[in-house]
Amino acid sequence: MIVMRVVLAYSGGLDTSVILSLLIEKLKAEVITVTVDVGQSDDFDKIAWRAEKIGAVKHYTIDAKEEFVRDYVFKAIKANALYEGKYPLSSALARPLIAKKLVDVAVKERADAVAHGCSGKGNDQLRFDITIKALKPDIKIIAPVREWGLNRDWEIEYAIKKGLPINVKKKIYSIDENLWGRSIESGVLEDPWSEPPEEVFKWTTSPEKAPDKPEYLVIKFKEGVPVAINDENLGPVELITYLNSKAGMHGVGRIDHIEDRVIGLKSREVYECPAAAVLIEAHKDLEKLVLTKRELMFKSLVDEVWADLVYSGLWVEPLRRDLDILIDFMERRVTGNVKVKLFKGNVLVVGRESENTLYEEELISYLSKSTFDQKLAVGFANLWGLQSIIASQRMRD
Amino acid sequence: MIVMRVVLAYSGGLDTSVILSLLIEKLKAEVITVTVDVGQSDDFDKIAWRAEKIGAVKHYTIDAKEEFVRDYVFKAIKANALYEGKYPLSSALARPLIAKKLVDVAVKERADAVAHGCSGKGNDQLRFDITIKALKPDIKIIAPVREWGLNRDWEIEYAIKKGLPINVKKKIYSIDENLWGRSIESGVLEDPWSEPPEEVFKWTTSPEKAPDKPEYLVIKFKEGVPVAINDENLGPVELITYLNSKAGMHGVGRIDHIEDRVIGLKSREVYECPAAAVLIEAHKDLEKLVLTKRELMFKSLVDEVWADLVYSGLWVEPLRRDLDILIDFMERRVTGNVKVKLFKGNVLVVGRESENTLYEEELISYLSKSTFDQKLAVGFANLWGLQSIIASQRMRD
Amino acid sequence: MIVMRVVLAYSGGLDTSVILSLLIEKLKAEVITVTVDVGQSDDFDKIAWRAEKIGAVKHYTIDAKEEFVRDYVFKAIKANALYEGKYPLSSALARPLIAKKLVDVAVKERADAVAHGCSGKGNDQLRFDITIKALKPDIKIIAPVREWGLNRDWEIEYAIKKGLPINVKKKIYSIDENLWGRSIESGVLEDPWSEPPEEVFKWTTSPEKAPDKPEYLVIKFKEGVPVAINDENLGPVELITYLNSKAGMHGVGRIDHIEDRVIGLKSREVYECPAAAVLIEAHKDLEKLVLTKRELMFKSLVDEVWADLVYSGLWVEPLRRDLDILIDFMERRVTGNVKVKLFKGNVLVVGRESENTLYEEELISYLSKSTFDQKLAVGFANLWGLQSIIASQRMRD
Amino acid sequence: MIVMRVVLAYSGGLDTSVILSLLIEKLKAEVITVTVDVGQSDDFDKIAWRAEKIGAVKHYTIDAKEEFVRDYVFKAIKANALYEGKYPLSSALARPLIAKKLVDVAVKERADAVAHGCSGKGNDQLRFDITIKALKPDIKIIAPVREWGLNRDWEIEYAIKKGLPINVKKKIYSIDENLWGRSIESGVLEDPWSEPPEEVFKWTTSPEKAPDKPEYLVIKFKEGVPVAINDENLGPVELITYLNSKAGMHGVGRIDHIEDRVIGLKSREVYECPAAAVLIEAHKDLEKLVLTKRELMFKSLVDEVWADLVYSGLWVEPLRRDLDILIDFMERRVTGNVKVKLFKGNVLVVGRESENTLYEEELISYLSKSTFDQKLAVGFANLWGLQSIIASQRMRD
Repeated sequence: MIVMRVVLAYSGGLDTSVILSLLIEKLKAEVITVTVDVGQSDDFDKIAWRAEKIGAVKHYTIDAKEEFVRDYVFKAIKANALYEGKYPLSSALARPLIAKKLVDVAVKERADAVAHGCSGKGNDQLRFDITIKALKPDIKIIAPVREWGLNRDWEIEYAIKKGLPINVKKKIYSIDENLWGRSIESGVLEDPWSEPPEEVFKWTTSPEKAPDKPEYLVIKFKEGVPVAINDENLGPVELITYLNSKAGMHGVGRIDHIEDRVIGLKSREVYECPAAAVLIEAHKDLEKLVLTKRELMFKSLVDEVWADLVYSGLWVEPLRRDLDILIDFMERRVTGNVKVKLFKGNVLVVGRESENTLYEEELISYLSKSTFDQKLAVGFANLWGLQSIIASQRMRD
Repeated sequence: MIVMRVVLAYSGGLDTSVILSLLIEKLKAEVITVTVDVGQSDDFDKIAWRAEKIGAVKHYTIDAKEEFVRDYVFKAIKANALYEGKYPLSSALARPLIAKKLVDVAVKERADAVAHGCSGKGNDQLRFDITIKALKPDIKIIAPVREWGLNRDWEIEYAIKKGLPINVKKKIYSIDENLWGRSIESGVLEDPWSEPPEEVFKWTTSPEKAPDKPEYLVIKFKEGVPVAINDENLGPVELITYLNSKAGMHGVGRIDHIEDRVIGLKSREVYECPAAAVLIEAHKDLEKLVLTKRELMFKSLVDEVWADLVYSGLWVEPLRRDLDILIDFMERRVTGNVKVKLFKGNVLVVGRESENTLYEEELISYLSKSTFDQKLAVGFANLWGLQSIIASQRMRD
Repeated sequence: MIVMRVVLAYSGGLDTSVILSLLIEKLKAEVITVTVDVGQSDDFDKIAWRAEKIGAVKHYTIDAKEEFVRDYVFKAIKANALYEGKYPLSSALARPLIAKKLVDVAVKERADAVAHGCSGKGNDQLRFDITIKALKPDIKIIAPVREWGLNRDWEIEYAIKKGLPINVKKKIYSIDENLWGRSIESGVLEDPWSEPPEEVFKWTTSPEKAPDKPEYLVIKFKEGVPVAINDENLGPVELITYLNSKAGMHGVGRIDHIEDRVIGLKSREVYECPAAAVLIEAHKDLEKLVLTKRELMFKSLVDEVWADLVYSGLWVEPLRRDLDILIDFMERRVTGNVKVKLFKGNVLVVGRESENTLYEEELISYLSKSTFDQKLAVGFANLWGLQSIIASQRMRD
Repeated sequence: MIVMRVVLAYSGGLDTSVILSLLIEKLKAEVITVTVDVGQSDDFDKIAWRAEKIGAVKHYTIDAKEEFVRDYVFKAIKANALYEGKYPLSSALARPLIAKKLVDVAVKERADAVAHGCSGKGNDQLRFDITIKALKPDIKIIAPVREWGLNRDWEIEYAIKKGLPINVKKKIYSIDENLWGRSIESGVLEDPWSEPPEEVFKWTTSPEKAPDKPEYLVIKFKEGVPVAINDENLGPVELITYLNSKAGMHGVGRIDHIEDRVIGLKSREVYECPAAAVLIEAHKDLEKLVLTKRELMFKSLVDEVWADLVYSGLWVEPLRRDLDILIDFMERRVTGNVKVKLFKGNVLVVGRESENTLYEEELISYLSKSTFDQKLAVGFANLWGLQSIIASQRMRD
């Protein structure tokens, strides 16, 4: 007797394969599996086959790459989103999209519950749970790793015992991948003093082994988002894919830092995000050409809040949407070209131009005009520091 | 008849040599010249000789390198000071120190005025004027370039006519140097689309020509400031000098961005700051190991305000001192080692350790203790996003 | 021979009457006078008569009250705009509007210059100059008080000598008025220790003499702006006028504080702003019912920046417009009723309701549902302070 | 057989009396009760008698009033602490102090656990739990209301059945009191549209019934904290007590707003905080006289963060201590007198003076000096808005 219908976020790995089996076995659930393609390098046919082999009554493979870039990654570029100044939010951005797809399937399939494989120690549980609840408050969420206390050793034993069609060899690293980046955790990386071994990297050439000749790219931005490279228009997915490959080849995009998880843990995180490294650096540079100083200072705060919200699983928080409205308005002017140089791990902006530039001619000419005599600067100099001067004298008296 | 005594900030270059001559000629001033050594690569004997040759009644060469690093650069490191995210404030930091030295000499020499060679278009006039006025409100400030409208062509002609002992060949770039960095302006750099030509760089090897082998350094920080490299204790000046040379050799520290001057102009600025590039990257990384997330978020704001104040000539503003008190208190815990890898323009932090770490054992064990069952995470997950969820549902209704 | 055509912002007072006369006399200018009605209690016919009497070739009286409220005051309400927490920006908001009207007339009349009566010590010069230049960069700005160093004694003497049709008796206070408030400066108010004498107030009854019975009003807001009082729909001007009178009668809206002018001076400022006092208090309260905590915290910062920009004369700064876009989006939900009690100087919010409330039923029921067992709170409590706890222990060790 | 020793925070009310009895009955605990006097109007002898009657093996009454004001309330005054702009944090400030006292007793008495009566829906559980854990990580925390799901009806029945010596009549409101304020929750207040009935107030006269004559007080601040009233030096507790009574008599200090609890609930909160209302208003005003504009803007942010941390139970968070260091440094100059007028609910600052004033003579004279000609203002006006002007023109083109 089937007691419930569950939609499971299925990656095809050990965790979710065991969960799939347990949901059927322990909860007598009818399980529909969903794999969302956000650019990870997986064999989706094999995943589908495996799900059905283990017992899923139905499997969905959903290509969400275009939606991921347009509605998530592009917003992150406009927000120069780097959590704690370093992490481009690759996994954090994909979670609310995957959650949305799960809920869509759950609605369509009239499911009673949604299940995911997140543990109770990370950020992803928050990203899934909060988005799912916001979209469908009445659906039940099942997170077996967290709730039933599953762990890898037990899972391996279970998978062998049940003969699950999955490779159970011990993983050294825990990996997550999508178009916006690849994250690597665990193993030797848990010692923050150890340099990440070369073996953890897959998308980026070691800077030492990268080409000896630098490569120049001209990236064209339109209203804050990249639309062309070297004068060739590229679709969103194409452009990100191209840059991941190109910049990765030059060793660009390796990130290694100490990160504060939402629940209060510090963890050492290693990422490869070649496209993100190039695009955020270029985008920031272009903003400096077209936004005023006051806008830049304020936006740097907005950007930090945006990244913190998204990292923290609060994609659905109204403030995130508010900030996007603000950012979109500011970005209308962020159109232009940025010339970057890729070389052995470096991404250097070496030129920028925009029809909306606040630099150059007009201002320079303003300052050279007869109306600008240098006397004006004397006036400014006298008043600019006036209060600081008086206060500072007072304090010495 | 001498009508006034003037203390002139004398660099030995064309501008201040012409000013020295003009002050004597036009104002009938008795001029005392002051050259402050903050690490620029100049021949101070020659500068002294030139000053006296032109007519200075007295010349001071003041070695302020140690004071510069201890009281200015080290504060900047603790504040991770990068104006608009890029510029380590090299010139901006030295100005208030030079101004202080000028005032000291003016007091000692009972001078009526202080003179400097800043124009009315830049930031340095503000940095000099404001500091001087705060320290000695009753002294007159003379800025001939700004007030008399001097320009380079006229200066060259004047220097030749007067036979001033100075090389008057046309400069292509305008350079400023001290221990914390080298700035290059003008010429072809005024086109923000042009890549800076190799000839503008002096402290840094081109990444392409830098050594093919990476080099690792372990930098030891004590209470927020660097004290040793590879276990060797170094004095402040020594340490910065060593890093400038070492990191410069590896092509590290080139900066190219669009910068907002205080008076509202955008300008394209190119810098070489090898030591700053290494130390700020390393220092930020170490902070992430020992400060809480709330401290890091707040300090990133403090750091931005600090850099903006110092850039804007407001060294004497009470808020700058307030922030230093706050920063010093937070930095008491920023002690530890950071391992960096220098390679062809890259500075990569690959390891960090601290006796004050908030990472690892303790926390991990806290989480594994019987007191931490994964149920707790369910509770957190439920409440963390509660308001966002409800608000988001409301907005869709 | 007429050498130039000047459009003068003409209030009808001594300053601008003398300026009118001087422009004709000294500059041989053809002067067109403009008086913008933003709600000040003046006799506009008399002002027009006076202008022409003194020699204006043409006079414009422009009723801008509706535009003032809709396009300036309503934005200020949405931004809860209080400079330094106290000043509702009454004069600051009107200046860019008056500047716009001046430029409109200047364009229509093909004038060469715009003139105003601001001194060099206040904020208004900045508000006029910057808006005018942004709207019409090629027009000349003449500010005779500032540029020719006019002062009141000289002006009185001049007015008498020239027989200008204006009352020249010595003013004790300097007053500025519009729909959003009345400001009073100078005289005994310059001593920050003296209580403002009763005579400086005109719009507000002394709290001691206000009615002995409190009065309740229900203010209806729609998308952040007030649209009705006690269920009666009122037009923007009508509503503000009504509240000024009603709240003023109850002694509400007197403000007395130390204010930082843009140029670095501190000044003691006294205002009467009855409508502003009521509307901003009510509006803030309503926001708390419908915005999330994260939105409220962020908006309090946005509001502060907005007020600072507008106070500082930077109405045209792109950031002000960016913030308005953000604010408008957040305010879409700020619809509802606020019940206020006016009594002898007090304005107390005693009730609020909104169709978009985040308070009550739904949330409460969420918390009482079987899904919420109090165990969840234990989980939250454990993780919420986790990092602070560990860090705090570390620091004591 | 005694299985554990528990230290219970005992208020003498129904909740904690029932808990005391349950701890003995269900856990076989030896319970030591602690009542901390932070200024609540209770009969401490009766509370002690009741505790022992119910079965406490020992009872502590700890007078912490002086410590509460010196180490908590005075910090709050310096930080102008008002959560969400309204709530002076009265209960929030006392919790970490009570937690500290509990831990002190627990250490002295070698207890195994600490118990408190907080529910799982409020903020106090966080304030207790986090402070206790930070001070003594190895002690167990028991919160029976939250963990055992106690509710008032059950408690009343239990108390009657057990014959506990306590008045079990139904409370309409939930009250908390200490020197810094009185909070009132529940009952009709849960409807945010209803005006709080007069019966909920105990410390404040209704403004309608307050004296018809205003009263003036001169409050003397020294380094940010109040030390005298009308020239009479008062100890911390004395001063706060005096102001609560004096301002309360004039109807000052009633607060009614919608508040965001940490766990994401909005709740309607009513407070009476007469001393806080007067002191924070006066203190803010004095700061404006002696701090620079840049300090005021920055401090307003610091103050908001401080209040949010303390409200949220994070007294032990290192950032709170960091901010106190900053605030203490800034406050060294906040010395002077503030004249306030109390009248029927109003607290109006009508005068202020300080030896550290940045207002007046010096500045004014600076501006009138020959060195300040009004031309300077022209220069400032030209450059202050330069970038905004150009950007604004660009956007219109």
